[in-house]
Amino acid sequence: MKFSKSTELAIHGLWMLANRRPGLLLVSEMADAQHVSQSYLAKVFQKLARKGLVRSTRGKRGGFTLAREPDKIALSEVVQAIEANEPLYECMDSGRGCGSRADCLLRDAFKEAEQALYAVLARTSLADLMQCARDDERIPWML
Amino acid sequence: MKFSKSTELAIHGLWMLANRRPGLLLVSEMADAQHVSQSYLAKVFQKLARKGLVRSTRGKRGGFTLAREPDKIALSEVVQAIEANEPLYECMDSGRGCGSRADCLLRDAFKEAEQALYAVLARTSLADLMQCARDDERIPWML
Repeated sequence: MKFSKSTELAIHGLWMLANRRPGLLLVSEMADAQHVSQSYLAKVFQKLARKGLVRSTRGKRGGFTLAREPDKIALSEVVQAIEANEPLYECMDSGRGCGSRADCLLRDAFKEAEQALYAVLARTSLADLMQCARDDERIPWML
Repeated sequence: MKFSKSTELAIHGLWMLANRRPGLLLVSEMADAQHVSQSYLAKVFQKLARKGLVRSTRGKRGGFTLAREPDKIALSEVVQAIEANEPLYECMDSGRGCGSRADCLLRDAFKEAEQALYAVLARTSLADLMQCARDDERIPWML
């Protein structure tokens, strides 16, 4: 199990947006800096826009800006915007016949584990990540 | 992000083994009950054997037994036996130049989140799952 490449791109893309504030960042700039296609990165950022983390600007020089201050964007929100359409764990429908019971301990354990994971990620904001990177001269891709 | 089908099969296969104690369960029995191929299930159980959760018996009627009492097998161990060869999150090597820094807040946050996830799963044992299912007549696949 592993968080997706899209989540990794979303986190680092937001980080770039935060460093560009208050300006707008073109999808092409973010895509080039992260070595991925514009269409792929645009899809990732459309998910972030739907969750209210970024705003998009249309047109020939369309791009994105942060929709909130970096200290108001938690790492958990970024990850959930990309990943959380499905639960961390689901039993297969393989004829076991227990899938609908309300008191399934297995499902409850995984649900609680997922909540614990996101609770930890909620404690780190985009501003925290920026602070951590600020003095590091080895980050040449920060636009 | 989602735990794999292999993890789901491992949990339910162990559950079946626990119900068959002290007897041995054939790979074919487990595979048939879970509607997967014997070769696939055997690979899953080889991982569990390597982590000391089950013992294998070779031969024409080769199969598996639990290596420990069900209350000594935590859900976290089962999941980690299948999934934990890779961390939950890794940054891509995309020329950002910050991959090797020791004090990366992003890596630390995900590491801590992963630990929180497994800490919750460590609180549920195979014995707990069995107790939960014991009185449920809708589980026909329990051999």
